[in-house]
Amino acid sequence: MKEFRVLDRVEDFRDLKDLSEEELKLLAQDIREYIIDVTSKNGGHIGPSLGVVELTIALLRAFNPEVDRIIWDIGHQAYSYKILTGRKEQFKTLRQYGGISGFLKIKESPYDHFGAGHSSTSISAALGMRVAKDLLKKEGYTIAVIGDGAMTAGQAFEGLNHAGWLDPSKFIVILNDNQMSISPNVGAIYTYFNKIITNEVYQRSRQKLKDVLKKVFGESGAKFARKLEEYAKGLFTPGVIFEELGFTYVGTIDGHSITDLEQTLNNVKKMRGPILVHVITQKGKGYKPAEENPTPFHGISPFDKITGVPIKKSVEKPSWSKAFGEALVELAEKDEKIVAITPAMREGSGLTEFSERFPDRFFDVGIAEQHAATFAAALSKEGMKPVASFYSTFLQRAYDQVVHDIAIQGLPVVLAIDRAGIVGEDGPTHHGVFDISFLRSVPDIVISAPKDWQELRDLLYTAVNSGKIFAIRYPRGTVTGDKKEGFSEIKIGSWEKISEGRDIAILAVGKYVQRAVQVKELLKKYGYNVTVINARFIRPMDIEILDETLRTHKYIITMEDGSLNGGFGSAVGEYILDNSYTNALLRFGIPDRFIGHGKIELLERDLGLLPEQMAEKIKEFISQENYKVVG
Amino acid sequence: MKEFRVLDRVEDFRDLKDLSEEELKLLAQDIREYIIDVTSKNGGHIGPSLGVVELTIALLRAFNPEVDRIIWDIGHQAYSYKILTGRKEQFKTLRQYGGISGFLKIKESPYDHFGAGHSSTSISAALGMRVAKDLLKKEGYTIAVIGDGAMTAGQAFEGLNHAGWLDPSKFIVILNDNQMSISPNVGAIYTYFNKIITNEVYQRSRQKLKDVLKKVFGESGAKFARKLEEYAKGLFTPGVIFEELGFTYVGTIDGHSITDLEQTLNNVKKMRGPILVHVITQKGKGYKPAEENPTPFHGISPFDKITGVPIKKSVEKPSWSKAFGEALVELAEKDEKIVAITPAMREGSGLTEFSERFPDRFFDVGIAEQHAATFAAALSKEGMKPVASFYSTFLQRAYDQVVHDIAIQGLPVVLAIDRAGIVGEDGPTHHGVFDISFLRSVPDIVISAPKDWQELRDLLYTAVNSGKIFAIRYPRGTVTGDKKEGFSEIKIGSWEKISEGRDIAILAVGKYVQRAVQVKELLKKYGYNVTVINARFIRPMDIEILDETLRTHKYIITMEDGSLNGGFGSAVGEYILDNSYTNALLRFGIPDRFIGHGKIELLERDLGLLPEQMAEKIKEFISQENYKVVG
Repeated sequence: MKEFRVLDRVEDFRDLKDLSEEELKLLAQDIREYIIDVTSKNGGHIGPSLGVVELTIALLRAFNPEVDRIIWDIGHQAYSYKILTGRKEQFKTLRQYGGISGFLKIKESPYDHFGAGHSSTSISAALGMRVAKDLLKKEGYTIAVIGDGAMTAGQAFEGLNHAGWLDPSKFIVILNDNQMSISPNVGAIYTYFNKIITNEVYQRSRQKLKDVLKKVFGESGAKFARKLEEYAKGLFTPGVIFEELGFTYVGTIDGHSITDLEQTLNNVKKMRGPILVHVITQKGKGYKPAEENPTPFHGISPFDKITGVPIKKSVEKPSWSKAFGEALVELAEKDEKIVAITPAMREGSGLTEFSERFPDRFFDVGIAEQHAATFAAALSKEGMKPVASFYSTFLQRAYDQVVHDIAIQGLPVVLAIDRAGIVGEDGPTHHGVFDISFLRSVPDIVISAPKDWQELRDLLYTAVNSGKIFAIRYPRGTVTGDKKEGFSEIKIGSWEKISEGRDIAILAVGKYVQRAVQVKELLKKYGYNVTVINARFIRPMDIEILDETLRTHKYIITMEDGSLNGGFGSAVGEYILDNSYTNALLRFGIPDRFIGHGKIELLERDLGLLPEQMAEKIKEFISQENYKVVG
Repeated sequence: MKEFRVLDRVEDFRDLKDLSEEELKLLAQDIREYIIDVTSKNGGHIGPSLGVVELTIALLRAFNPEVDRIIWDIGHQAYSYKILTGRKEQFKTLRQYGGISGFLKIKESPYDHFGAGHSSTSISAALGMRVAKDLLKKEGYTIAVIGDGAMTAGQAFEGLNHAGWLDPSKFIVILNDNQMSISPNVGAIYTYFNKIITNEVYQRSRQKLKDVLKKVFGESGAKFARKLEEYAKGLFTPGVIFEELGFTYVGTIDGHSITDLEQTLNNVKKMRGPILVHVITQKGKGYKPAEENPTPFHGISPFDKITGVPIKKSVEKPSWSKAFGEALVELAEKDEKIVAITPAMREGSGLTEFSERFPDRFFDVGIAEQHAATFAAALSKEGMKPVASFYSTFLQRAYDQVVHDIAIQGLPVVLAIDRAGIVGEDGPTHHGVFDISFLRSVPDIVISAPKDWQELRDLLYTAVNSGKIFAIRYPRGTVTGDKKEGFSEIKIGSWEKISEGRDIAILAVGKYVQRAVQVKELLKKYGYNVTVINARFIRPMDIEILDETLRTHKYIITMEDGSLNGGFGSAVGEYILDNSYTNALLRFGIPDRFIGHGKIELLERDLGLLPEQMAEKIKEFISQENYKVVG
């Protein structure tokens, strides 16, 4: 570890009290350097974390995390908080296998009061803890720190609405306003925040106005004046929305001045009722490349510290997301009915080019998955061809809308499910392993997964023209295979035979098709001749191929990057038993536990999902002859 | 059909144009009588529907449902709309098997522009249709009608936020404010609405105030005055929240004056940008029993038209919901850490007594399932024992929060899942058939279902003291069995052998245990001796009993009131195949299609789930010997 002027002397938050203003400033610099250093090696959410260094210091001086509860929304901005709550050394292991998480995690530290990974839960969480503290007569404040991006999600509103109703004291919401989500923010609430911030004329004339009104109305009837004052709140308070919901609004505060922040926090500690403190910060603050280019620096892979340029292995192939976006642009060029919808994941979902080429047909709805799904259903009802892109893990937020607005109504929508399967460093909150299970029970949804680049393109082409509800799931990372010119339709529900063997058949989904081929090669060495089938449709299954396979192979192996409970292998099992087949089934996939963070290969190794491991397991399985006798 | 003065002459909305003011009033009376008549026989959402008779007439005079889109949130208030859009005769079949739906349904009528059943989707839907119309250059307005209760849900906010941002014209949101959800409303937004409505002083002084401000500031600098006017909006506009989100607020309007409503609607048609019209209505308007007792008349079973008293078959036993609520009160008496959470379903979930006995430990959070789940997780984190009650179908809205805030963090919360399985007249949007499948893939959640009253009590007792995430699912309707004094702990994951037979074993879940016993009796007549097992834990399963059963019975039958895809039977199938058993498995449950509405028994008959039907099917199954030979 390089030497830091102040950070070296600070073990944790307890040492912050004794530092001078100057030392605090130096500490903020130290922490920034440290964060830049570690994230340049490990990757991570550098932009959000650099934006709240001062806020973190001020919070840890004004509050005591031993008794107070500080809840960071999403938790990806909490690197300084980790460093200052006993994880200074461990911070070097950020996001690495066996190291500390990139998010907050209650199992990692007693100071991680509530974990996250998905956005907009912090107000609900802080309110629950506030209420519990009051019921149990426990000491301390409860504080939620939430970004302006996260404020677009319905759950944040639900939390504000309930908090305003309950009217608790010692309950503080800090709106960390950096005027960005991952991409620039969208939504009317953002325009509103922006209006508060930018209106200097108003900010200056606030007091003046107050005086004038007092002078004019002070003399008239008491009742009228009182009523007036109440309704004039909109005039005095830029945060009228929060005020109307029962909060006292305090703002705006410079989020990079420790002194201002600390003073404000100490003031609001004395106020009664729920408080909203509006803090203005800059994403990526203190690191030029991140300040100038906040979007790529929201969450980033390892990069060169000096230039800020990501250190990429030389890959010519695009990510699955980019391949999806490219294909969608090609299709949209020829079909004006295609529209794209994303809940605040334009870049991540590969839709940047689409948004530039077809701004009228591109809808970033903010962090609002529920709305995204219903909005897509309605576009479909009125004759458009909506393609709504969700990360698998975030689609969980729209589950009811997928059931209720899309599936029950039978409205054709393409669900492009990105980041399906194990995602790596982002860990348990981000692995997309439940989608097959939770979609498979919902009637009328086609569920597919491409084995490679061209198949993704062909599935997308098939989907937009199918008139069906059509999910396409694909993983994080670089595409496999190549692309051809143009698109071909794939018969819905058709599987593809990759290799013809005997006795053993592997039915593989998505990225596991390639791995199945590797497993086949390994098993060949042991003298086994393996059939490999690309089960590109999880539903409907290819009954013709499935029946034939079950009739001609004793051992059936399934491979998927999703939950074993209720997943694709489970569907194959249901079919075997429902149709009184007597095959032996071995299923590979995600077992019934949450999976940690780290490089995908390391996590897969733990799960026994590497080709060598699976080949061994299959060998063992078929040699076992362990059929139990039925009484 | 009794004779109606005006309704008899009105075929559909086209005939409304020619009616005089007096005739319109009589029509409203006719429609009310008709609704009361039909719902008194069929049951239904009488309260909400009686509240919007005039609004419906005004909408159908001001707009043309052939080109305009009228989207009723939830759709349970749309009885007048159904009557006036070509379903006057069919309305008598409301909610009956084979009859018309109690909600709007795009497959039922071209005038049902977007269906629903769950709340708070209408703004998203209307916006999607608005955008599509604009892209396709189609004529017409898009209107969402949403209740004040539904406004507490996050999705409504997500929709407003996106609409304010997109700023479409010919887009109207009608806030149908009856100051009620099902129960009296909760949430800060409601206090806010209420303040708008009740403040007559303000309403009167609005213009006066405007004049005064003009006089004072009119002379000073132009820029300041402009700015002032902008910020003074809060002073002029009671709907400042909507205004800040980019809507033009119009209100409040008397929702029982057809003339006022029609005039307002015709005025706002000419305005640009998104409009919010705030209409004040009374739930149950025009029917005394419903006006005086709005909560039971929100949705009701058949009742005596004169007295308003529900026609109940004489049952001494409580509903499952009531039995749950009673048990929770008993437990909470002795354990101060128990808290109850409901998303706006106090009465429906049987929590009324709890709310009265323990007001400090009762939380109706509004229609806000996402918040409810996270809020419960946080209460748990801080040391309370939260019991969160959800209807199975509405739990879909909290799926991500169950995964992300409860399960990943391992925070003990009891999920009391009411209305699990087929619910009857409310139909496809309300059947609770997915919960087993969508919870079974999420690690660390205990999933249970009681066979009878006492077992519900014992499971609840076990759950609150278990320190685990513990789901208890139970159906709609009256409990089976009896209750004893007090509570007994049930070993987690333990099943119960109900009868000992041979060859055939039925593993049944929840309400199907009783039915399994009936099936056993029927099969006895054919000479079969059947083992019946109460599989009260869907997860973890009782491996000891399961292994023993699989070893000693050739034929395994599963019964559940949930989806066959990925459900309990699927879990048993996974176990059979994973452990190389060779049993034959027959699974009863909900097949892979959406189920309609009507009496539960009629729907179950269609699904072959009545005891006689299942007995026949089992007989056929075991006599078939249809094992396919493996190549």
